[in-house]
Amino acid sequence: MSSLANLESSALLTDLYELTMAAGYLQTGFDARATFELFVRRLPSERNYLIAAGLEQALEFLETVHFSEGEVEFIRRDPMFRHVRGEFFNYLSRFRFTGEVSAVPEGSVIFANEPLLRVTAPIIEAQLLETRLLAAINFQTMIASRAARVVTAAKGRPVVEFGARRAHGAEAGIFAARASFIAGCAGTSNVFASRLFGIPAYGTQAHSWIMAFEDESQAFDRFLDVFPEQATLLLDTYDVRAALKKVIARGRKPAGVRLDSGDMAADSRWARRQLDRIGWRDVQIFVSGDLDEHKIAALFRRGAQISAFGVGSALVAPTDTRNLSMIYKLVEVERAGKIREAAKLSESKSTYPGRKQVFRFSGASGKWKSDVIALDSESPAGGAPLLVPVMRNGKRLAPPERLTVARDRCAESIKHLPPRLLSLVPAPPYPVRHSKQLRTLLQQVRRRIRKAQ
Amino acid sequence: MSSLANLESSALLTDLYELTMAAGYLQTGFDARATFELFVRRLPSERNYLIAAGLEQALEFLETVHFSEGEVEFIRRDPMFRHVRGEFFNYLSRFRFTGEVSAVPEGSVIFANEPLLRVTAPIIEAQLLETRLLAAINFQTMIASRAARVVTAAKGRPVVEFGARRAHGAEAGIFAARASFIAGCAGTSNVFASRLFGIPAYGTQAHSWIMAFEDESQAFDRFLDVFPEQATLLLDTYDVRAALKKVIARGRKPAGVRLDSGDMAADSRWARRQLDRIGWRDVQIFVSGDLDEHKIAALFRRGAQISAFGVGSALVAPTDTRNLSMIYKLVEVERAGKIREAAKLSESKSTYPGRKQVFRFSGASGKWKSDVIALDSESPAGGAPLLVPVMRNGKRLAPPERLTVARDRCAESIKHLPPRLLSLVPAPPYPVRHSKQLRTLLQQVRRRIRKAQ
Repeated sequence: MSSLANLESSALLTDLYELTMAAGYLQTGFDARATFELFVRRLPSERNYLIAAGLEQALEFLETVHFSEGEVEFIRRDPMFRHVRGEFFNYLSRFRFTGEVSAVPEGSVIFANEPLLRVTAPIIEAQLLETRLLAAINFQTMIASRAARVVTAAKGRPVVEFGARRAHGAEAGIFAARASFIAGCAGTSNVFASRLFGIPAYGTQAHSWIMAFEDESQAFDRFLDVFPEQATLLLDTYDVRAALKKVIARGRKPAGVRLDSGDMAADSRWARRQLDRIGWRDVQIFVSGDLDEHKIAALFRRGAQISAFGVGSALVAPTDTRNLSMIYKLVEVERAGKIREAAKLSESKSTYPGRKQVFRFSGASGKWKSDVIALDSESPAGGAPLLVPVMRNGKRLAPPERLTVARDRCAESIKHLPPRLLSLVPAPPYPVRHSKQLRTLLQQVRRRIRKAQ
Repeated sequence: MSSLANLESSALLTDLYELTMAAGYLQTGFDARATFELFVRRLPSERNYLIAAGLEQALEFLETVHFSEGEVEFIRRDPMFRHVRGEFFNYLSRFRFTGEVSAVPEGSVIFANEPLLRVTAPIIEAQLLETRLLAAINFQTMIASRAARVVTAAKGRPVVEFGARRAHGAEAGIFAARASFIAGCAGTSNVFASRLFGIPAYGTQAHSWIMAFEDESQAFDRFLDVFPEQATLLLDTYDVRAALKKVIARGRKPAGVRLDSGDMAADSRWARRQLDRIGWRDVQIFVSGDLDEHKIAALFRRGAQISAFGVGSALVAPTDTRNLSMIYKLVEVERAGKIREAAKLSESKSTYPGRKQVFRFSGASGKWKSDVIALDSESPAGGAPLLVPVMRNGKRLAPPERLTVARDRCAESIKHLPPRLLSLVPAPPYPVRHSKQLRTLLQQVRRRIRKAQ
């Protein structure tokens, strides 16, 4: 038996076919270096750009990944590996990642088809890690991309990520908090994530606090006793307006009040007027309750008076896309000194061959104009490369980046986006094209593969 | 700093407001026992029933939950707790769960509004664990409920869960594999989950295996060399029909072939004919590629000849619902010997008060007829109670259940469902009503709360 304790560095968190292929490569003496690229096939229909996130977890994994003795034994006993020779299991016992990685830094804006991670390593290593790399980067990139939209909709008001209870388990909640913070959220309700990543923690009181007392006023009073400067009082357990009248009647100014249901545009306007009337202009009106970017925009359109937003489900399990169509594809094989570019040609799912780089071009205004996906060996004039080397021989080239650096990069990147892309509805797409050399190479590889058929 | 290593038992995986309320209860001397119930407000629009899952992880958590010293220190240093007295931090250091739990066993069919977990404990304990209990049970119940539909659509053909790379991180993939297995999936591609839970692991080869070789035939041959009895060969890297002709031409019979894109109904019929013609009737046709229950049903309608299905995204991140609207609500407070039932009355989100039980009634056919949600103290004639005691004084009442027991329970439960509920589209709902005593209690609590306003 195993537990989740070694989950972070376990090479066993993979699909079985990665292990069968590994055994196949080893046992048939297929000794090659391979390059894989990780990218998104297309943007989810509502999104005009993506925010790269999850690289730090991917690198932590690559630095520490290994099989425990028990894990190797588990594989050895699987009937699937009945005909596999002992050298494979010895190989697994020694398995470490020794390759090189280039990546787009976290917080960067990226688009469909642009590689955000490129791994070059002995083919077994590069292949075996696919599942985990995808799971880490796919999820955080999806969340960061959604969170950026929510933050845009909030027009400068703080957005706090509230999703832990709605996340796909404990780990997902923690990384959703991280990705949301990169994308501009002010903080999280998730205390574990707050400690792990240094993200500010926010929290007030739940309906159960109010319900536990016989009397709502008493519930407010007792909370103010313990949190005299910090209390945000929840108004909608029974009746929002009656509750605010009680708060005002007691004369003890809270830090804020929270609405979690009902007509929040109307109630927030009304609450703001009541609070301002008695000079409580600095009492925050905090709003939560199944919010997303569209609901936030609608609240503003209806004149809502809101100081800050709490957003849960939309930041942990977005409905607009269940996941990004992120894939990890073999693009090059180097064997016996010969390099051969690889591509998949099936009708609906073909891919471009070759080691690639993304070059970004800016206009005179400083706003970005277009991207070109090119071969790594190209260097188109004026294009800024997005992928940077982050790992060599299985070691990082720089210490882990502080999370606020990624967050600042994201804020800065969004300023460079053509403004139409910040729309919450689909905008004319940002221009991304493949270089002429890359298109020529694709034709060559196509011809070579067709000839071999 | 912390890491994910202690994630399974860390009480810090909570929302900050659970901690502020805990401090509030302790410091104001609010010494009460509370009962909370966890339930789903309504079924996702497409689903006619749910399969309970995730209880085992919830119980493991309740048995081991605690704060490490570092975690307590982290809370103490948060400015939010500036006015909180030292006794609270001492309390956290000693914190354990000491309460009692009743629950619907995993693999059971449940419906909206039916409590699937009921916690009675000192109010701080019962409250603090909310976030984690929801995250565990909400996610696995969502996945199991979807997987049951996929298994129904597959009409007895094995379904293998393939979602690790599309899951919301590593942990989510593992628990999705578990929940899918409870709901009737035959296995998983996730090797970590296979080892942790004893779920059969399945896997073949990826497109990259084919692409790594110069020649597709050579790629098939090398795989058959290593896995002579087990190889399932992937046909759609370049051209499905050309690939199958190569396999047949070599004359080495694989265990199966796999289609992952293209017109899988037509290709599977064609492949079956080719295989049967040469007497390879036992060669399995395995199909994968963004499948869900509707696509599987459509494949059968088009006469697809499929031996087994691999399903990824739909089993780890369902699109039909981002999460269940699962909540954990205070229903009763016992303080100084007095019991007071609690309810939330806000317009859109009111809840029923009181400790509840669910009673299920069967018809003469053995099929279930209706459920009644009643007070725990009721015992309507002929009704079988669904919630059973699973924990007392913070200890389990029985050792962990084997996963196959939950899986068998699920298979058995589905046999008792009125057949219309097995439809993949919405059916007339299964009748669930609240007992007269419960409705009377709700009126009483409403009056009491309105009077107090």
